[in-house]
Amino acid sequence: MEYDGLFAERTMGIGTSAIREILKVVSKPGMVSLAGGIPAPSSFPIEIIKDLTQQVFETYGSAAFQYDLTEGFPPLRDALSGYLKKHRGIVAAADEILVASGSQGILDAVGKVFIGRGDFVAVEAPTYLGALQAFNPYEPNYIRLETDDNGLIPEALESALERWPLKFIYLVPSFQNPSGRTLSYDRRIEVARILKDRNSFLVEDDPYSLLRYRGEDIPPIKTLAPENVLYINTLSKVFAPGLRIGFCVAPEPVRKWLVIVKQGVDLHTSTLNQALAAEYLDGGYLDRHLPRILDIYGPRQEAMLKALDRYFPGRFKWSKPEGGMFLWAEGPNGLDMEKVYWKAISKNVAFVPGKFFYTDSNEGAETMRLNYTMADEPTIDRAVRILADVLCQEMRRL
Amino acid sequence: MEYDGLFAERTMGIGTSAIREILKVVSKPGMVSLAGGIPAPSSFPIEIIKDLTQQVFETYGSAAFQYDLTEGFPPLRDALSGYLKKHRGIVAAADEILVASGSQGILDAVGKVFIGRGDFVAVEAPTYLGALQAFNPYEPNYIRLETDDNGLIPEALESALERWPLKFIYLVPSFQNPSGRTLSYDRRIEVARILKDRNSFLVEDDPYSLLRYRGEDIPPIKTLAPENVLYINTLSKVFAPGLRIGFCVAPEPVRKWLVIVKQGVDLHTSTLNQALAAEYLDGGYLDRHLPRILDIYGPRQEAMLKALDRYFPGRFKWSKPEGGMFLWAEGPNGLDMEKVYWKAISKNVAFVPGKFFYTDSNEGAETMRLNYTMADEPTIDRAVRILADVLCQEMRRL
Repeated sequence: MEYDGLFAERTMGIGTSAIREILKVVSKPGMVSLAGGIPAPSSFPIEIIKDLTQQVFETYGSAAFQYDLTEGFPPLRDALSGYLKKHRGIVAAADEILVASGSQGILDAVGKVFIGRGDFVAVEAPTYLGALQAFNPYEPNYIRLETDDNGLIPEALESALERWPLKFIYLVPSFQNPSGRTLSYDRRIEVARILKDRNSFLVEDDPYSLLRYRGEDIPPIKTLAPENVLYINTLSKVFAPGLRIGFCVAPEPVRKWLVIVKQGVDLHTSTLNQALAAEYLDGGYLDRHLPRILDIYGPRQEAMLKALDRYFPGRFKWSKPEGGMFLWAEGPNGLDMEKVYWKAISKNVAFVPGKFFYTDSNEGAETMRLNYTMADEPTIDRAVRILADVLCQEMRRL
Repeated sequence: MEYDGLFAERTMGIGTSAIREILKVVSKPGMVSLAGGIPAPSSFPIEIIKDLTQQVFETYGSAAFQYDLTEGFPPLRDALSGYLKKHRGIVAAADEILVASGSQGILDAVGKVFIGRGDFVAVEAPTYLGALQAFNPYEPNYIRLETDDNGLIPEALESALERWPLKFIYLVPSFQNPSGRTLSYDRRIEVARILKDRNSFLVEDDPYSLLRYRGEDIPPIKTLAPENVLYINTLSKVFAPGLRIGFCVAPEPVRKWLVIVKQGVDLHTSTLNQALAAEYLDGGYLDRHLPRILDIYGPRQEAMLKALDRYFPGRFKWSKPEGGMFLWAEGPNGLDMEKVYWKAISKNVAFVPGKFFYTDSNEGAETMRLNYTMADEPTIDRAVRILADVLCQEMRRL
């Protein structure tokens, strides 16, 4: 039968995902992937999870396998309240916290609650692709916010708010995906002031801040303008992504709607996985395990930074973040990073061409995102050398 | 700050959920709930799950905790292919199956892919509330399909298709929620013919068919018109609902879009829970455990049917399904079941007033849904007697 006429207009607008298509080759055997945003399996606390599983059976029994509240499993919400205070300086009671199936689940709910067709949403240039994928079906108009090495430029936010009736601003202020950049504390204060002055709403996505290898933590914007910020975090980078545990702290009038739409999407997030997460946080396992994760990723980031210094062509520059999972490299104008991608793939090295992280399809052709969490140090060195060879060849043609 | 102006139009249209509000009291201590659609905790294969957990650690290791494919964990898709053939007579290769976070996740994706504001979707009267909650944010116009004791009346479907350009028809053909009714085999053949003749699309939701206490299985409509049907099932009733494992078989042009929108909603369903489900099906545990579930629910249904016979007023009639989790009772015109609800609550018995399952707010005031899976036989007998007392009192006022 014919299906095309049955689809909603929005579906035709979503389009097939170009990045999904080009990344299909990344799982080819033998490929070294600097492409994904995937934690190293060696970073998972597998032995701890075995113990946690026993504890969940003992502590919660069949309740860990039953339907549960849309808002989240109460023991996990309690544990997250403590986690947020200790690790992010955010004061939130358990019932102010909403658990979702990954932070992606929050992003989808945000899109559904706030975005009507044609509504204006401001995002960084470049921005997190998963957020665009969550928001796109609700058909926003994106307003591009200029960034530099210190993240969002506050004046760019101010002038966007001047010009457009924004539903919200979406930011990843710490070790941003894809750029690795961090919004400085001074700028956070400035952003918080702008939000309050202009009665504007920020969606602050903070998945990476605990992955800090150097330097000092910077408080979330949520702590500076609590009523103006929906704060999102996840256990995917500090526990296990396959368990799909994200969460948010939102002002009550917003949270109420997030809960209602989440109920329509999945009723609630896996009870078992929430129970495992509750035990992980409550038992102090996260605090003991986090340094091990940092010990894996820190040296990998260092290896990548060194390899970039050693091999990459002189006309390149790249971010030097104090944490996170990504570096961002920019070549000279005229370089077509998608061409570089296919040549690198033929040499078994994958990365993500940066243009996919922009809402304006003309931007970012000469940029790339490099992940350093999935490969070990010697592999990173070798992969960056191969990439550099391809880049040098490609640049000779410019 | 003021949030109201920030919400999308659709959000204002969703409204607060009346049923959510009235059901809040159900969790009060001492309440006997005939309200939920919740499996008995005693039906969960807890000891089996303990073994499965070990097997998952051994078989999949860290892969059970890593990000995975949006389409579903490959070993589970393989296992579901065998399950669908054996238990539902549906021939589907692993890659034709999409796993989601509960069948609710499929319903949300269906809404997102098919429904634009004002599009026509046909549902039974009464219909499953969770489907309405999934579809509502996409702002459909519902077309009401007349039903009787044998489920959907095919002529009602034919005339709806005559009159309206339906995006799809949503049915729960076996042991429907809320009515418990089953679409007869003859009618399924007729519905399949209509779908094919009219090039129409059916969303067939089949969560209850394995919970059969008497009589013979009836094949899904999917087997009669494969190209015209998106078939949805879940492991929530035969494994554990808290693991949130639903799945569907859809024609390729539809499945492609379901995958893309699901990626935006939660990236993928919990890998751990999918691995547990794969082991449950592959190890033959479901086949061994299912009879135990039926041994719990069959006698409970019988107890409820007997109690209704014994206590309920003469002017009531109710469904007598061969399986599932619900009975549907209808009182005389003029009876206000929401009033009955509050009186029953004051006597610590809960049920769901039937009007919430209708898309037309004027329908169903005199109906009720009764669940029999959560209480044991003596409790069911006592609760139905209390309900009957309240009903008799209330009917005297008519």
